[in-house]
Amino acid sequence: MKLLEDRIRKDGVVKAGNVLKVDSFLNHQMDVPFFNEMGKEFKRLFEGTPINKILTIEASGIGIAIIAGLHFQVPVVFAKKSRSSNISDQVYHTIIHSYTHNCDNDVVVSKQYLHADDHLLIIDDFLANGCALEGLIDIAHQAGATVEGIGIAVEKGFQSGGDRLRSQGYRVESLAIVERMDPISGTIEFRSSER
Amino acid sequence: MKLLEDRIRKDGVVKAGNVLKVDSFLNHQMDVPFFNEMGKEFKRLFEGTPINKILTIEASGIGIAIIAGLHFQVPVVFAKKSRSSNISDQVYHTIIHSYTHNCDNDVVVSKQYLHADDHLLIIDDFLANGCALEGLIDIAHQAGATVEGIGIAVEKGFQSGGDRLRSQGYRVESLAIVERMDPISGTIEFRSSER
Repeated sequence: MKLLEDRIRKDGVVKAGNVLKVDSFLNHQMDVPFFNEMGKEFKRLFEGTPINKILTIEASGIGIAIIAGLHFQVPVVFAKKSRSSNISDQVYHTIIHSYTHNCDNDVVVSKQYLHADDHLLIIDDFLANGCALEGLIDIAHQAGATVEGIGIAVEKGFQSGGDRLRSQGYRVESLAIVERMDPISGTIEFRSSER
Repeated sequence: MKLLEDRIRKDGVVKAGNVLKVDSFLNHQMDVPFFNEMGKEFKRLFEGTPINKILTIEASGIGIAIIAGLHFQVPVVFAKKSRSSNISDQVYHTIIHSYTHNCDNDVVVSKQYLHADDHLLIIDDFLANGCALEGLIDIAHQAGATVEGIGIAVEKGFQSGGDRLRSQGYRVESLAIVERMDPISGTIEFRSSER
Protein backbone atom coordinates (compact mmCIF):
# COMPACT_ATOMS: atom_id res chain seq x y z
CA MET A 1 0.00 0.00 0.00
CA LYS A 2 1.82 3.02 -1.30
CA LEU A 3 0.07 5.36 1.14
CA LEU A 4 1.54 3.45 4.10
CA GLU A 5 5.00 3.11 2.56
CA ASP A 6 5.07 6.87 1.94
CA ARG A 7 3.94 7.53 5.50
CA ILE A 8 6.62 5.24 6.95
CA ARG A 9 9.27 6.98 4.83
CA LYS A 10 8.00 10.36 6.02
CA ASP A 11 7.34 9.69 9.72
CA GLY A 12 9.05 6.38 10.58
CA VAL A 13 12.26 6.54 12.58
CA VAL A 14 14.83 3.75 12.24
CA LYS A 15 16.71 3.01 15.43
CA ALA A 16 19.47 0.62 16.32
CA GLY A 17 18.43 -2.95 17.12
CA ASN A 18 15.99 -3.30 14.22
CA VAL A 19 13.54 -0.88 15.83
CA LEU A 20 11.20 1.01 13.53
CA LYS A 21 9.34 3.70 15.45
CA VAL A 22 6.01 4.55 13.88
CA ASP A 23 4.30 5.69 17.04
CA SER A 24 3.50 9.12 15.64
CA PHE A 25 0.69 7.64 13.52
CA LEU A 26 0.34 3.89 14.12
CA ASN A 27 0.76 2.60 17.65
CA HIS A 28 0.75 5.39 20.21
CA GLN A 29 -0.77 8.35 18.44
CA MET A 30 -3.16 6.84 15.91
CA ASP A 31 -4.04 8.74 12.75
CA VAL A 32 -7.65 7.64 12.51
CA PRO A 33 -8.48 8.96 9.02
CA PHE A 34 -5.34 7.15 7.84
CA PHE A 35 -6.45 3.98 9.67
CA ASN A 36 -9.68 4.25 7.71
CA GLU A 37 -7.71 3.97 4.46
CA MET A 38 -5.91 0.88 5.83
CA GLY A 39 -9.27 -0.64 6.82
CA LYS A 40 -10.58 -0.09 3.28
CA GLU A 41 -7.48 -1.78 1.85
CA PHE A 42 -7.90 -4.86 4.08
CA LYS A 43 -11.50 -5.06 2.91
CA ARG A 44 -10.36 -4.88 -0.72
CA LEU A 45 -7.64 -7.49 -0.23
CA PHE A 46 -9.92 -10.00 1.51
CA GLU A 47 -13.01 -9.31 -0.63
CA GLY A 48 -14.93 -12.53 -1.15
CA THR A 49 -13.40 -14.27 1.86
CA PRO A 50 -16.09 -15.44 4.32
CA ILE A 51 -14.83 -13.50 7.35
CA ASN A 52 -17.31 -13.21 10.22
CA LYS A 53 -15.00 -12.05 13.01
CA ILE A 54 -11.68 -10.28 13.53
CA LEU A 55 -9.20 -11.45 16.16
CA THR A 56 -6.43 -9.19 17.44
CA ILE A 57 -4.35 -8.67 20.57
CA GLU A 58 -4.12 -5.76 22.94
CA ALA A 59 -3.10 -3.05 22.82
CA SER A 60 -1.79 -1.68 19.55
CA GLY A 61 -3.65 -4.14 17.32
CA ILE A 62 -7.04 -2.93 18.51
CA GLY A 63 -7.19 0.37 16.62
CA ILE A 64 -6.60 -1.12 13.18
CA ALA A 65 -8.77 -4.13 13.96
CA ILE A 66 -11.70 -1.91 14.95
CA ILE A 67 -11.50 0.10 11.74
CA ALA A 68 -11.24 -3.12 9.73
CA GLY A 69 -14.26 -4.41 11.68
CA LEU A 70 -16.19 -1.36 10.56
CA HIS A 71 -15.39 -2.06 6.90
CA PHE A 72 -16.16 -5.78 7.22
CA GLN A 73 -19.14 -5.07 9.53
CA VAL A 74 -18.04 -7.84 11.90
CA PRO A 75 -17.19 -7.92 15.62
CA VAL A 76 -13.62 -7.72 16.88
CA VAL A 77 -12.33 -9.93 19.69
CA PHE A 78 -9.08 -8.92 21.31
CA ALA A 79 -6.86 -11.35 23.18
CA LYS A 80 -5.98 -10.09 26.64
CA LYS A 81 -2.60 -10.19 28.26
CA SER A 82 -2.79 -11.76 31.74
CA ARG A 83 -5.95 -12.78 33.44
CA SER A 84 -8.43 -10.17 34.56
CA SER A 85 -10.86 -10.83 37.37
CA ASN A 86 -13.55 -9.74 34.91
CA ILE A 87 -12.76 -12.65 32.57
CA SER A 88 -14.40 -15.99 33.16
CA ASP A 89 -12.23 -19.02 33.87
CA GLN A 90 -13.52 -20.44 30.61
CA VAL A 91 -10.76 -19.11 28.41
CA TYR A 92 -8.45 -20.26 25.65
CA HIS A 93 -4.95 -19.64 26.83
CA THR A 94 -1.53 -19.36 25.20
CA ILE A 95 1.86 -17.86 26.01
CA ILE A 96 3.39 -15.22 23.74
CA HIS A 97 6.96 -14.05 24.07
CA SER A 98 7.47 -10.33 23.62
CA TYR A 99 10.90 -9.37 22.31
CA THR A 100 10.01 -5.69 22.78
CA HIS A 101 9.48 -6.11 26.50
CA ASN A 102 11.60 -9.26 26.91
CA CYS A 103 8.92 -11.18 28.78
CA ASP A 104 6.35 -13.94 28.33
CA ASN A 105 2.72 -12.90 28.37
CA ASP A 106 -0.17 -15.13 29.30
CA VAL A 107 -2.78 -14.37 26.68
CA VAL A 108 -6.43 -15.35 26.96
CA VAL A 109 -9.66 -15.24 24.97
CA SER A 110 -12.98 -16.18 26.51
CA LYS A 111 -14.37 -19.40 25.04
CA GLN A 112 -17.68 -17.57 24.69
CA TYR A 113 -16.36 -15.44 21.84
CA LEU A 114 -14.56 -17.89 19.57
CA HIS A 115 -16.25 -20.94 18.08
CA ALA A 116 -15.67 -23.72 15.58
CA ASP A 117 -17.90 -21.99 13.03
CA ASP A 118 -15.90 -18.74 13.12
CA HIS A 119 -13.96 -17.63 10.03
CA LEU A 120 -11.31 -15.29 11.34
CA LEU A 121 -9.24 -12.46 9.99
CA ILE A 122 -6.34 -11.96 12.40
CA ILE A 123 -5.13 -8.34 12.49
CA ASP A 124 -2.08 -6.80 14.11
CA ASP A 125 -0.07 -3.62 13.66
CA PHE A 126 3.36 -5.27 13.38
CA LEU A 127 4.78 -8.58 12.20
CA ALA A 128 8.43 -9.34 12.94
CA ASN A 129 9.28 -12.73 14.44
CA GLY A 130 5.61 -13.80 14.35
CA CYS A 131 5.27 -14.82 18.01
CA ALA A 132 2.10 -12.81 18.61
CA LEU A 133 0.44 -14.19 15.47
CA GLU A 134 1.41 -17.77 16.29
CA GLY A 135 -0.21 -17.28 19.69
CA LEU A 136 -3.40 -15.97 18.10
CA ILE A 137 -3.40 -18.86 15.58
CA ASP A 138 -2.97 -21.28 18.50
CA ILE A 139 -6.02 -19.75 20.20
CA ALA A 140 -8.01 -19.92 16.95
CA HIS A 141 -7.14 -23.60 16.59
CA GLN A 142 -8.11 -24.32 20.20
CA ALA A 143 -11.53 -22.94 19.29
CA GLY A 144 -11.65 -25.00 16.09
CA ALA A 145 -12.07 -21.75 14.13
CA THR A 146 -10.82 -21.22 10.58
CA VAL A 147 -8.08 -18.65 10.00
CA GLU A 148 -9.07 -17.11 6.68
CA GLY A 149 -6.19 -14.68 6.64
CA ILE A 150 -3.82 -12.42 8.49
CA GLY A 151 -3.78 -8.67 7.95
CA ILE A 152 -0.77 -6.66 9.09
CA ALA A 153 0.07 -3.00 8.80
CA VAL A 154 3.88 -3.15 8.88
CA GLU A 155 5.89 -6.33 8.35
CA LYS A 156 9.62 -6.48 8.92
CA GLY A 157 10.43 -8.66 5.93
CA PHE A 158 14.01 -9.17 7.09
CA GLN A 159 12.74 -11.05 10.15
CA SER A 160 11.37 -14.53 9.71
CA GLY A 161 7.78 -14.38 10.94
CA GLY A 162 5.92 -13.44 7.77
CA ASP A 163 7.62 -15.84 5.42
CA ARG A 164 7.36 -18.69 7.95
CA LEU A 165 3.60 -18.15 8.28
CA ARG A 166 3.23 -18.00 4.47
CA SER A 167 5.18 -21.25 4.12
CA GLN A 168 2.72 -22.81 6.57
CA GLY A 169 -0.06 -21.93 4.16
CA TYR A 170 -1.49 -18.85 5.83
CA ARG A 171 -2.54 -15.94 3.67
CA VAL A 172 -0.60 -13.00 5.13
CA GLU A 173 -1.37 -9.57 3.69
CA SER A 174 0.98 -6.88 4.98
CA LEU A 175 0.21 -3.35 3.82
CA ALA A 176 3.93 -2.53 3.86
CA ILE A 177 6.88 -4.93 4.03
CA VAL A 178 10.16 -3.37 5.10
CA GLU A 179 12.92 -5.29 3.34
CA ARG A 180 15.83 -3.34 4.73
CA MET A 181 16.38 -0.34 6.97
CA ASP A 182 19.48 1.49 8.10
CA PRO A 183 19.68 3.27 11.46
CA ILE A 184 22.66 5.35 10.31
CA SER A 185 21.25 6.83 7.10
CA GLY A 186 17.60 6.37 8.12
CA THR A 187 16.79 4.82 4.74
CA ILE A 188 13.97 2.30 4.47
CA GLU A 189 13.46 -0.06 1.52
CA PHE A 190 10.23 -1.92 0.88
CA ARG A 191 9.62 -5.29 -0.72
CA SER A 192 8.05 -4.56 -4.07
CA SER A 193 4.49 -5.70 -4.38
CA GLU A 194 2.27 -6.00 -7.39
CA ARG A 195 -1.40 -6.37 -6.80
CA MET B 1 -28.38 6.52 25.22
CA LYS B 2 -31.29 4.16 25.10
CA LEU B 3 -29.56 1.83 22.65
CA LEU B 4 -26.76 1.20 25.16
CA GLU B 5 -29.09 0.87 28.14
CA ASP B 6 -31.13 -1.71 26.23
CA ARG B 7 -27.98 -3.58 25.27
CA ILE B 8 -26.70 -3.63 28.86
CA ARG B 9 -30.10 -4.94 30.04
CA LYS B 10 -30.01 -7.64 27.34
CA ASP B 11 -26.36 -8.74 27.47
CA GLY B 12 -24.87 -7.34 30.69
CA VAL B 13 -24.29 -9.76 33.55
CA VAL B 14 -24.34 -8.48 37.13
CA LYS B 15 -21.91 -10.28 39.42
CA ALA B 16 -21.10 -10.01 43.09
CA GLY B 17 -18.68 -7.26 44.10
CA ASN B 18 -20.21 -4.56 41.91
CA VAL B 19 -18.97 -6.25 38.73
CA LEU B 20 -20.94 -5.59 35.54
CA LYS B 21 -19.74 -7.87 32.77
CA VAL B 22 -20.32 -6.40 29.34
CA ASP B 23 -17.50 -8.20 27.61
CA SER B 24 -19.79 -9.79 25.03
CA PHE B 25 -20.09 -6.46 23.20
CA LEU B 26 -17.97 -3.76 24.86
CA ASN B 27 -14.58 -4.74 26.22
CA HIS B 28 -13.50 -8.17 25.02
CA GLN B 29 -15.69 -8.92 22.05
CA MET B 30 -16.45 -5.53 20.54
CA ASP B 31 -19.61 -5.03 18.51
CA VAL B 32 -18.18 -2.61 15.96
CA PRO B 33 -21.42 -1.52 14.24
CA PHE B 34 -22.75 -0.79 17.75
CA PHE B 35 -19.56 1.14 18.58
CA ASN B 36 -20.26 3.22 15.50
CA GLU B 37 -23.58 4.30 17.03
CA MET B 38 -21.79 5.24 20.27
CA GLY B 39 -19.23 7.24 18.27
CA LYS B 40 -22.03 9.14 16.53
CA GLU B 41 -23.60 9.92 19.90
CA PHE B 42 -20.33 11.31 21.32
CA LYS B 43 -20.06 13.48 18.23
CA ARG B 44 -23.62 14.74 18.78
CA LEU B 45 -23.06 15.40 22.49
CA PHE B 46 -19.81 17.34 21.98
CA GLU B 47 -20.89 19.12 18.79
CA GLY B 48 -19.42 22.61 18.71
CA THR B 49 -16.66 21.80 21.22
CA PRO B 50 -13.20 22.51 19.75
CA ILE B 51 -11.80 18.98 20.11
CA ASN B 52 -8.63 18.28 18.12
CA LYS B 53 -7.48 15.06 19.77
CA ILE B 54 -8.83 12.13 21.75
CA LEU B 55 -6.95 10.70 24.72
CA THR B 56 -7.67 7.22 26.04
CA ILE B 57 -5.88 4.40 27.87
CA GLU B 58 -5.10 0.88 26.79
CA ALA B 59 -6.62 -1.53 26.26
CA SER B 60 -10.39 -1.43 26.39
CA GLY B 61 -10.70 2.32 25.85
CA ILE B 62 -9.04 2.14 22.44
CA GLY B 63 -11.92 0.65 20.46
CA ILE B 64 -14.47 3.31 21.40
CA ALA B 65 -11.87 6.07 21.15
CA ILE B 66 -10.96 5.04 17.60
CA ILE B 67 -14.57 5.06 16.44
CA ALA B 68 -15.09 8.43 18.13
CA GLY B 69 -11.91 9.63 16.39
CA LEU B 70 -13.43 8.64 13.07
CA HIS B 71 -16.54 10.71 13.77
CA PHE B 72 -14.54 13.70 15.04
CA GLN B 73 -11.85 13.17 12.34
CA VAL B 74 -9.08 13.63 14.92
CA PRO B 75 -6.16 11.46 16.03
CA VAL B 76 -6.34 9.24 19.11
CA VAL B 77 -3.48 8.98 21.60
CA PHE B 78 -3.59 6.09 24.01
CA ALA B 79 -1.76 6.11 27.33
CA LYS B 80 0.40 3.03 27.76
CA LYS B 81 0.70 0.93 30.86
CA SER B 82 4.35 0.43 31.84
CA ARG B 83 7.27 1.63 29.82
CA SER B 84 8.01 0.05 26.48
CA SER B 85 11.50 0.06 25.03
CA ASN B 86 9.89 1.58 21.94
CA ILE B 87 8.77 4.66 23.90
CA SER B 88 11.15 7.55 24.28
CA ASP B 89 12.21 8.68 27.73
CA GLN B 90 10.44 11.92 27.00
CA VAL B 91 7.10 10.92 28.47
CA TYR B 92 4.42 12.28 30.74
CA HIS B 93 4.02 9.81 33.55
CA THR B 94 1.39 9.06 36.16
CA ILE B 95 0.36 6.15 38.37
CA ILE B 96 -3.13 4.68 38.12
CA HIS B 97 -4.50 2.21 40.61
CA SER B 98 -6.55 -0.60 39.10
CA TYR B 99 -9.19 -2.03 41.42
CA THR B 100 -9.96 -4.73 38.83
CA HIS B 101 -6.42 -6.09 38.92
CA ASN B 102 -5.53 -4.75 42.39
CA CYS B 103 -2.29 -3.16 41.26
CA ASP B 104 -0.72 0.19 40.44
CA ASN B 105 0.11 0.82 36.80
CA ASP B 106 2.75 3.19 35.55
CA VAL B 107 1.09 5.00 32.69
CA VAL B 108 2.93 7.05 30.10
CA VAL B 109 2.25 9.27 27.10
CA SER B 110 5.04 10.51 24.88
CA LYS B 111 5.54 14.27 25.19
CA GLN B 112 5.60 14.38 21.39
CA TYR B 113 1.89 13.68 21.17
CA LEU B 114 0.30 15.99 23.75
CA HIS B 115 0.81 19.76 23.71
CA ALA B 116 -0.40 22.92 25.37
CA ASP B 117 -2.54 23.79 22.35
CA ASP B 118 -4.43 20.46 22.41
CA HIS B 119 -8.14 20.41 23.21
CA LEU B 120 -8.85 16.91 24.42
CA LEU B 121 -11.80 14.62 24.61
CA ILE B 122 -10.91 11.86 27.06
CA ILE B 123 -12.66 8.58 26.25
CA ASP B 124 -12.92 5.36 28.24
CA ASP B 125 -15.23 2.37 28.29
CA PHE B 126 -15.95 2.39 32.04
CA LEU B 127 -16.12 4.94 34.83
CA ALA B 128 -16.39 3.71 38.41
CA ASN B 129 -14.03 5.18 41.01
CA GLY B 130 -12.48 7.49 38.42
CA CYS B 131 -8.83 6.55 38.99
CA ALA B 132 -8.06 5.98 35.30
CA LEU B 133 -9.64 9.29 34.30
CA GLU B 134 -7.84 11.22 37.02
CA GLY B 135 -4.60 9.75 35.72
CA LEU B 136 -5.41 10.84 32.17
CA ILE B 137 -6.41 14.32 33.40
CA ASP B 138 -3.10 14.51 35.28
CA ILE B 139 -1.25 13.69 32.06
CA ALA B 140 -3.29 16.27 30.12
CA HIS B 141 -2.43 18.91 32.73
CA GLN B 142 1.27 18.02 32.61
CA ALA B 143 1.07 18.78 28.88
CA GLY B 144 -0.81 22.02 29.55
CA ALA B 145 -3.62 20.72 27.33
CA THR B 146 -7.30 21.64 27.79
CA VAL B 147 -9.72 18.87 28.76
CA GLU B 148 -12.85 19.78 26.81
CA GLY B 149 -14.80 16.81 28.03
CA ILE B 150 -14.91 13.20 29.09
CA GLY B 151 -16.88 10.59 27.15
CA ILE B 152 -17.70 7.29 28.82
CA ALA B 153 -19.68 4.30 27.63
CA VAL B 154 -20.80 2.87 30.98
CA GLU B 155 -20.67 4.77 34.27
CA LYS B 156 -21.36 3.09 37.58
CA GLY B 157 -23.31 5.95 39.11
CA PHE B 158 -23.30 4.31 42.54
CA GLN B 159 -19.54 4.70 42.69
CA SER B 160 -18.08 8.12 43.27
CA GLY B 161 -15.89 8.82 40.24
CA GLY B 162 -18.36 10.45 37.85
CA ASP B 163 -19.97 12.80 40.33
CA ARG B 164 -16.60 13.79 41.79
CA LEU B 165 -15.29 14.69 38.34
CA ARG B 166 -18.46 16.67 37.58
CA SER B 167 -18.14 18.56 40.88
CA GLN B 168 -14.60 19.48 39.81
CA GLY B 169 -16.08 21.14 36.73
CA TYR B 170 -15.40 18.50 34.10
CA ARG B 171 -18.05 17.82 31.52
CA VAL B 172 -18.62 14.07 31.83
CA GLU B 173 -20.96 12.50 29.28
CA SER B 174 -21.71 8.86 30.03
CA LEU B 175 -23.85 7.06 27.47
CA ALA B 176 -25.37 4.93 30.23
CA ILE B 177 -25.25 5.50 33.99
CA VAL B 178 -26.05 2.45 36.09
CA GLU B 179 -27.70 3.71 39.28
CA ARG B 180 -28.18 0.35 40.92
CA MET B 181 -27.71 -3.29 40.06
CA ASP B 182 -28.52 -6.50 41.88
CA PRO B 183 -26.41 -9.63 41.46
CA ILE B 184 -29.21 -11.84 42.85
CA SER B 185 -32.05 -10.78 40.56
CA GLY B 186 -29.80 -9.49 37.79
CA THR B 187 -31.80 -6.27 37.55
CA ILE B 188 -30.11 -3.07 36.41
CA GLU B 189 -31.52 0.43 36.92
CA PHE B 190 -30.26 3.46 35.02
CA ARG B 191 -30.07 7.10 36.07
CA SER B 192 -32.73 8.88 34.05
CA SER B 193 -31.33 11.34 31.56
CA GLU B 194 -33.05 14.06 29.57
CA ARG B 195 -31.19 15.49 26.68
